[in-house]
Amino acid sequence: AMQEFCEVLFPAVTAELLAELPPTDALTVLSQCPLERRAEIFGYLPLGFQITLVENMDRKPLSRLVQEMAADDRVDLLEKLDPNQVETLLPLIAQAERADIRRLLSYPEGSAGSIMTTEYASLPKSITVGEAFDRLRLQAPDRETIYYIYIIDDRRQLLGFISMRKLILAKPQQLLSEIMRNDVIYVKVDDDDEFVANELNRYGFIAIPVVDTENRLVGIVTHDDAADVLREEAEEDQHRLAAVEPLDDSYFSTSVFVLAQKRGFWLLFLLGASVFTAWVLQFFQGSGERGWIIMFLPLVMASGGNAGSQSAALVISALARDHARLRVIGTFHILTRELSLSLILGGTVASISFFCAWLLTGAIAPAIVVSTTVLLVVVMAAVTGAAMPIVIQSFDADPAYMSTPLIAAIVDVIGVIIYFNVAYLVFGNLPA
Amino acid sequence: AMQEFCEVLFPAVTAELLAELPPTDALTVLSQCPLERRAEIFGYLPLGFQITLVENMDRKPLSRLVQEMAADDRVDLLEKLDPNQVETLLPLIAQAERADIRRLLSYPEGSAGSIMTTEYASLPKSITVGEAFDRLRLQAPDRETIYYIYIIDDRRQLLGFISMRKLILAKPQQLLSEIMRNDVIYVKVDDDDEFVANELNRYGFIAIPVVDTENRLVGIVTHDDAADVLREEAEEDQHRLAAVEPLDDSYFSTSVFVLAQKRGFWLLFLLGASVFTAWVLQFFQGSGERGWIIMFLPLVMASGGNAGSQSAALVISALARDHARLRVIGTFHILTRELSLSLILGGTVASISFFCAWLLTGAIAPAIVVSTTVLLVVVMAAVTGAAMPIVIQSFDADPAYMSTPLIAAIVDVIGVIIYFNVAYLVFGNLPA
Ligand SMILES: [Mg+2]
Ligand SMILES: [Mg+2]
Ligand SMILES: [Mg+2]
Ligand SMILES: [Mg+2]
Ligand SMILES: [Mg+2]
Ligand SMILES: [Mg+2]
Ligand SMILES: [Mg+2]
Ligand SMILES: [Mg+2]
Ligand SMILES: [Mg+2]
Ligand SMILES: [Mg+2]
Ligand SMILES: [Mg+2]
Ligand SMILES: [Mg+2]
Ligand SMILES: [Mg+2]
Repeated sequence: AMQEFCEVLFPAVTAELLAELPPTDALTVLSQCPLERRAEIFGYLPLGFQITLVENMDRKPLSRLVQEMAADDRVDLLEKLDPNQVETLLPLIAQAERADIRRLLSYPEGSAGSIMTTEYASLPKSITVGEAFDRLRLQAPDRETIYYIYIIDDRRQLLGFISMRKLILAKPQQLLSEIMRNDVIYVKVDDDDEFVANELNRYGFIAIPVVDTENRLVGIVTHDDAADVLREEAEEDQHRLAAVEPLDDSYFSTSVFVLAQKRGFWLLFLLGASVFTAWVLQFFQGSGERGWIIMFLPLVMASGGNAGSQSAALVISALARDHARLRVIGTFHILTRELSLSLILGGTVASISFFCAWLLTGAIAPAIVVSTTVLLVVVMAAVTGAAMPIVIQSFDADPAYMSTPLIAAIVDVIGVIIYFNVAYLVFGNLPA
Repeated sequence: AMQEFCEVLFPAVTAELLAELPPTDALTVLSQCPLERRAEIFGYLPLGFQITLVENMDRKPLSRLVQEMAADDRVDLLEKLDPNQVETLLPLIAQAERADIRRLLSYPEGSAGSIMTTEYASLPKSITVGEAFDRLRLQAPDRETIYYIYIIDDRRQLLGFISMRKLILAKPQQLLSEIMRNDVIYVKVDDDDEFVANELNRYGFIAIPVVDTENRLVGIVTHDDAADVLREEAEEDQHRLAAVEPLDDSYFSTSVFVLAQKRGFWLLFLLGASVFTAWVLQFFQGSGERGWIIMFLPLVMASGGNAGSQSAALVISALARDHARLRVIGTFHILTRELSLSLILGGTVASISFFCAWLLTGAIAPAIVVSTTVLLVVVMAAVTGAAMPIVIQSFDADPAYMSTPLIAAIVDVIGVIIYFNVAYLVFGNLPA
């Protein structure tokens, strides 16, 4: 059974199954697989899970794993590890691989260098097509792709490009210099990763070459990694658009504590804006005895709208990315998570509104009404915002219909009702 | 020069340059290119531009173009043409191609069938590796990819899969049945296109085979088309999340009239929700003489927030997709477009709020104040929402920071100021 698990299933599938296991169990299973296959499966695991596993591995087997992993994937992992741990690991790795790792580690996150791999196929221009096939047979086993072949000179300058299709159609005795394309499309090693991914898509390439400032070929970015970049960038935009700092992991595997930070920052910033609106409103509202009710009406509604928009956007993008996870995780789990999260966020926002309302009105009672309302509205909005996309999807409609403005509209009316009822409870009557 | 334009540049680049020309000029240039190259360039043009060109072409050259285009691209085009035009065109096309077109046209939009191509490489299992290369050489020129080879029997049942890499590493006398992988990952022809694209990415494939209900191979979906699907789906989600019906074309090339429809629907729907909030508020506000000011405060702020969120989301996703276009189109052009658009949208929303306010308060003066404010706020918000992401980007920051809640917060405070000033102008004093 273990043999089947390692060898028969596709590595991507094995990785998905492993990621659902407790880390120690996943490690036990992995240790049964042959090294090469183990490294391949490992590369498909979510980065967070890779890190957990690595923290439970001994240096020796870890160094063998790292040595065998794809050049780009292992650097993604090492980047996230403690630099000291990396330094104790590197001496165990073969010299050539070690140099490769150090070079790839040196490129800043978000650059072409950070998503490229050094395992590309390259040939000199002076050989024949027949010789090219012989050499490619040697390169094939450990190159990311051999379908795009880059022609370089002995200083690694990028001179030309030949596709495997063209090579197959060419006559064995033709020289590569005769059939290669000279005007190669390439990107620079410090180009933005999103730009690189868009360039690759623009031409429909399988891979795009990356050169350094001296026009030397230093790597390639492959279509699968370009797709990852674009998916992450789209998700980042979706989150930012709803005032959530982008998550490093998937929504499902991000902790409540991290979510609270990623959302709390923007909630507090936006609260500041609402306090300013309240401050402006006081000039128009005059100092009527219950004028403060109106002053804080926008603040109450905005707090709910903001928290609800965040939840909706997170759940909608999580469903788009992997809606099968929803069945594994369960709606109930998501809602209880949003509930505890919104208690943290609502509590924080409510405490600060308490002081702001106190300061602006000079009285305690309004501060109690406003902060209690804010707490209730944030919790209500966060849970509604998370639940509605799931409900909509269960009717086979697009969860994205649960737009930020729609959430705000729903929260506006419920928020108003909560606000005036809380005021009624505290004061025993309503403002005229 | 024309020769260079057709032959030397990459087809994707030629297409981008052509798309900036007036359609008649683009046609003239295209007619100078050899047919094969012309068809290739044509496939890279934006669909809307393809349709414009086709409407200006004679049947004869059009039929030759269609016959030469990639099987998937031409069906995307024919789908959008008038069915009568397609029927007059088909008789001019060779029998085999015609049957292929009719079959691909039959798959519903959003299915695997609608994004697949029938130009895949396939071989029988009984031949040797050496024979396989001979046959692939014949298939190579017109197949979308020859790097993934599907093994089928004479009923076209999908039996196995061999990558070109494996073929190159195999011995010439080996049988394909010995080296093929039996458990092929495939999708069904009526699977959702987004699911198909995600499956392809999950395994990092260059292409994924598509089978019918009888497990017969009917096509493949290639990585470039999968990337297009995912980009469109992400953009669709971004637009829906900001309450804009998804656009068929890019934001830059969508007319003000179409944008007004895609946004107007949701603005009116959300206006309904705000009217309901106003109705609820009247119970709490009592019937104080100026109570209506408070009743319509949420409506005024929401109208601005909604319109501004739509503009911001459209501009942000347009910048992410193609921020070079901004330089061609120009900020000023975008802002004047948003201005005229917001006058249409603001005018509509304002007219309806006029009647709602009149109905809910029974007086004309409040209706005048509310509708005037709504018009001003919608225009201010739409222009602000479009301008802010561009401003932020000009400081090299991420335009997506201009989130929906942030737009709402900005609009809330400006909206309040406009509202009370309009009321002051109409009544000569402010409510106590
Ligand atoms: Mg290696
Ligand atoms: Mg980036
Ligand atoms: Mg990296
Ligand atoms: Mg890779
Ligand atoms: Mg990868
Ligand atoms: Mg971005
Ligand atoms: Mg063809
Ligand atoms: Mg779809
Ligand atoms: Mg189609
Ligand atoms: Mg295609
Ligand atoms: Mg395409
Ligand atoms: Mg969708
Ligand atoms: Mg609001």
